[in-house]
Amino acid sequence: MAKNNEKKFDRAALEGLLLKRFFYAPSFAIYGGIAGLFDYGPPGTALQNNMINLWRKHFVLEEDMLEIECTNLTPEAVLKTSGHVDRFADYMVKDVKTGDIFRADHLVKQVLNGRLDTDEALANGTFDKKKVPKGKPMPERLSPEVKAEYETVLESLDNYQGDDLWKLMQKLEIKAPETGNDVSEPKLFNLMFETQIGPTGQFKGYLRPETAQGHFLNFKRLLESNQDQMPFASASIGKSFRNEIAPRQGLLRVREFTMAEIEHYVDPLKKDHPRFHTIKDLELTLYPADRQLQGAGTIRMKMGDAVAQGVVNNETLGYFVCRIYLFLVRIGINPSRLRFRQHMANEMAHYASDCWDAEIESSYGWIECVGCADRSAYDLTQHSKATKEKLVVRETLPEPISRDVVVLDIKKAVFGPAFKANAKYVTGYLETLMVDSETWDAAKLKDLDAKLKAGNGSTKIIGTDGNEYVLTNKMVEVVEKTETIHVREYVPNVIEPSFGLGRILYSLLEHVWWIREGDDEARNVLSFNPAIAPTKALILPISSNEQFNPFISQVANALRREGVSTRIDDSAASIGKRYARNDELGTPFAITVDFQTVKDQTIREDIPTIVSIIKDLVEERITWSDVEGKYTAFTGQEV
Amino acid sequence: MAKNNEKKFDRAALEGLLLKRFFYAPSFAIYGGIAGLFDYGPPGTALQNNMINLWRKHFVLEEDMLEIECTNLTPEAVLKTSGHVDRFADYMVKDVKTGDIFRADHLVKQVLNGRLDTDEALANGTFDKKKVPKGKPMPERLSPEVKAEYETVLESLDNYQGDDLWKLMQKLEIKAPETGNDVSEPKLFNLMFETQIGPTGQFKGYLRPETAQGHFLNFKRLLESNQDQMPFASASIGKSFRNEIAPRQGLLRVREFTMAEIEHYVDPLKKDHPRFHTIKDLELTLYPADRQLQGAGTIRMKMGDAVAQGVVNNETLGYFVCRIYLFLVRIGINPSRLRFRQHMANEMAHYASDCWDAEIESSYGWIECVGCADRSAYDLTQHSKATKEKLVVRETLPEPISRDVVVLDIKKAVFGPAFKANAKYVTGYLETLMVDSETWDAAKLKDLDAKLKAGNGSTKIIGTDGNEYVLTNKMVEVVEKTETIHVREYVPNVIEPSFGLGRILYSLLEHVWWIREGDDEARNVLSFNPAIAPTKALILPISSNEQFNPFISQVANALRREGVSTRIDDSAASIGKRYARNDELGTPFAITVDFQTVKDQTIREDIPTIVSIIKDLVEERITWSDVEGKYTAFTGQEV
Repeated sequence: MAKNNEKKFDRAALEGLLLKRFFYAPSFAIYGGIAGLFDYGPPGTALQNNMINLWRKHFVLEEDMLEIECTNLTPEAVLKTSGHVDRFADYMVKDVKTGDIFRADHLVKQVLNGRLDTDEALANGTFDKKKVPKGKPMPERLSPEVKAEYETVLESLDNYQGDDLWKLMQKLEIKAPETGNDVSEPKLFNLMFETQIGPTGQFKGYLRPETAQGHFLNFKRLLESNQDQMPFASASIGKSFRNEIAPRQGLLRVREFTMAEIEHYVDPLKKDHPRFHTIKDLELTLYPADRQLQGAGTIRMKMGDAVAQGVVNNETLGYFVCRIYLFLVRIGINPSRLRFRQHMANEMAHYASDCWDAEIESSYGWIECVGCADRSAYDLTQHSKATKEKLVVRETLPEPISRDVVVLDIKKAVFGPAFKANAKYVTGYLETLMVDSETWDAAKLKDLDAKLKAGNGSTKIIGTDGNEYVLTNKMVEVVEKTETIHVREYVPNVIEPSFGLGRILYSLLEHVWWIREGDDEARNVLSFNPAIAPTKALILPISSNEQFNPFISQVANALRREGVSTRIDDSAASIGKRYARNDELGTPFAITVDFQTVKDQTIREDIPTIVSIIKDLVEERITWSDVEGKYTAFTGQEV
Repeated sequence: MAKNNEKKFDRAALEGLLLKRFFYAPSFAIYGGIAGLFDYGPPGTALQNNMINLWRKHFVLEEDMLEIECTNLTPEAVLKTSGHVDRFADYMVKDVKTGDIFRADHLVKQVLNGRLDTDEALANGTFDKKKVPKGKPMPERLSPEVKAEYETVLESLDNYQGDDLWKLMQKLEIKAPETGNDVSEPKLFNLMFETQIGPTGQFKGYLRPETAQGHFLNFKRLLESNQDQMPFASASIGKSFRNEIAPRQGLLRVREFTMAEIEHYVDPLKKDHPRFHTIKDLELTLYPADRQLQGAGTIRMKMGDAVAQGVVNNETLGYFVCRIYLFLVRIGINPSRLRFRQHMANEMAHYASDCWDAEIESSYGWIECVGCADRSAYDLTQHSKATKEKLVVRETLPEPISRDVVVLDIKKAVFGPAFKANAKYVTGYLETLMVDSETWDAAKLKDLDAKLKAGNGSTKIIGTDGNEYVLTNKMVEVVEKTETIHVREYVPNVIEPSFGLGRILYSLLEHVWWIREGDDEARNVLSFNPAIAPTKALILPISSNEQFNPFISQVANALRREGVSTRIDDSAASIGKRYARNDELGTPFAITVDFQTVKDQTIREDIPTIVSIIKDLVEERITWSDVEGKYTAFTGQEV
């Protein structure tokens, strides 16, 4: 389906429009450009800013999240702990003669899809013989077995790593597509940009590949900022960087991009959500992992049912999936081209225990635009281990809990004098009997107790210096007792909605673009919601008479003071041409200077009223039909 | 003065507060931190976001600028052209034994200031003998000549580069301050972070040291977006990166920071500004270069007078200086601690022809927070040369201009057949007679004409392949003629207001911080303007009775829906304590749940009215005294 769509959709026309009106453009174009880097021009920047403002309102403000801003530069140690130094990599191969570099899985996909397309063309007689290079034989039809094999490989490419991937590529005889040359063995290429921090040249750092790590490292301060109350969320909007092997598909796979990430910290035993009732009747298109395996397609479900039936794991995950849906629809994504797909086990990131992607359909197919992963306690646990810093929540229990524990009572008055300077080596040994700095290992203590009893109150142990020491029951005593626990300590789980703003922005542009078939020439229109539109109001004189100038300035200044972005078009072009130019920018409202028209319809009011109407429209307090209903009556009277 | 102030101001107390309430904190603290990298916590992030929103409104919206967003990653070629690869560097020296690294000029400053302080302490008898290391002699008083020399060096340190700097350091016997060891010869250290873009490992890039280059590279698209009208400005808010040798002074000298930069493109012949009259009577504190040289101190001047008297070079520069002033005061900078200092010739960046810094006084002295530089046509010219891309404005002249020109008329019918395949080498020679792709060099053509005449209509020339060719007057003719010019072409000058948001944010925190001497303990207060305050309203029940909960949620949700950030404090602490906690966050308004009080004063209204009052206060449509005036009367009636 995506493929058919791709053929019908005139992407070149849209991209031409976006470049012409400078929504975005390749960075460093006058220096020849670099793949995967784009600059946003004025309408693209305004569009993204408006999306970010709505995102802040929808998530940070309405959900009372703690927004933070962390650095892009990140020392190696942090990303070593998070797993990115070792595992954030793709396989690349080289054309053995030209040195051209390909991402291995993309190459396999491209070659196999090419062979399948050729086979299809041969089957239905549309194959173009001119495409066969001189001296090469005509391609032959694929056997049903080979075709089936290709299709299986394409479905399960994510399963092939290292040696398996290389064997697969050899078996399938994958060559560089343009030269036909052999390609080298796949080699892992880390996707992070490396640099040196400070003047010594010896402190390695990276540009962050996600904003998430900054949240985790600040967990203690954040919990404190939230007055130690759980659950809560941190949020951050900023750049991330991935040194893609082969950037492609415009804004969809780039090397530098803006992310908006939320880390919601939740008690692993209480994944319900206090506002779940507000979204439980929302019906969404879901694509659970088992239905993908069965080839059963998507399913429409209310979130309340999805959680009740275990399709979505818990209320918190379900709540955020719904909030993501509401945000995307609010900015103008077509809900019929939006689905939530659960990750299959083999495609999950190394830190995730469950993940639902918001996928938006565009001419490139269904593209992941928001991930909503349950990162479990992975990151906090890893950072805690690496730094010895406790990243936990301490919760006073409503009722104290009693439990049986085994502890070692060290009689300092005897222990110290007995070992003198060597006491630390014996203490070192005793620490090996603990689970953590506060908890003894019951089995090990019982074992020690048994040895002491067997030795008539004494036993030999090996100190941490490697020497033998004698421990007696005058020095230590294993005590079984009942302990009353007032505080529960736990590492929270993390639910992470993670937005790729560039991908959403591009998908939105596809969804709001259409061609108005006009009296004269067809014209491009971008139908943005007023809240999202880069420019809110076009101000134009009905003709290029200088007497209109003071009124134009007056209206423009009044709107700008109210924070409503406006664009004046007082050029000599016809009204129709000027409307057309602003249709291309997606400007929803227009004010002509004799105040006869607002857009195609007409109301007539004084300047302050016009300004306040536009402001209310933009901030979505009223709709255009409210305006028509209220003001049309005046028109006749005042003209 | 700054120095005295530094002693009185309890910076440690403020920094303690900012860390405790997580305005900002060292990044990667649990990994030991890295100098010069800071994370912003929730109040710091909200404060910065609010500053950015006001900046956008004040500059982008009200001045109708074109906002863009360009990449941080920048290829080497771009920064080679801009001069940063060769010249964006500081001198560093090493302790020859420990390897500790110092920025050379900072080290000289530190050592000389230390000697001067010691001398002063010796003079007034406050010298602490215990500070002299064992076995070392007591320091002696400095002679008046040496003292004067030190002071001169401190004033003119920027003048010392390379060899001169090394000679100076040797002469002054500058040692590493803690070890007393020798330091190595100063070596230039480039301040840009280097990385590799793409998988080949052979494409060098940097993190941008300023956002400006992205604007310049997009100049053509921007001019087009502005419908080819001049003057206009582009604006961009984003990160920049400088690998400082020795980051210090908290947020003032960091390795990654947010900049807001404007590039205003102006006709070099028309540097007046259409809105100059709106600011001409604004009186500012100026510190022109000549008054710095004379030690004459700052001067208060109206901008109209400053431009008229040539103190500030032109209206456009003056207009932006005033707009910068208005912005800084609007966000809460104390105007009596704000001055504009003109750069001395020796401290100007390599691209600047004039520069005024907005300096804000804090406990660190007068710190540059905004630069307002006239970059002339430097960058556009350099990029144009490097890429052969014309970065110019073409202006249709109101009246065509006539001028005498010399051109070469190439007779293609003869020229081509005469040289055949070698024509390109001869054409290559002819191109050396041009100034640019459209203009001939009159002197060179006249020279060629003379040779042709001397050779009876023919002359020998060397083609670009190094071979000799004969050129005749049948092939080329030097023609003098009068040309009518309809279009003027020029490279615009660029006025650049460039804001360091972190520096402004820190200075603001110093300006709004004070200690309220209370009945019980003294409390910290940050008096933010409502528009800038991280949280606008505190909602708190008068006591911790559960019956208040629904009202708290109702008020909070209503305010959040209106985009007003709120904080609920329903903890068991006393009302006083809860106010104190929120004074520390600078929350300007408070709503107690029986609606008796807004902050310390009292008004009583229903929820929608309260919400709309708070919203109007935050958006600066009304002031607190308006509220008191209107609502106090109701109090008595309704209680």
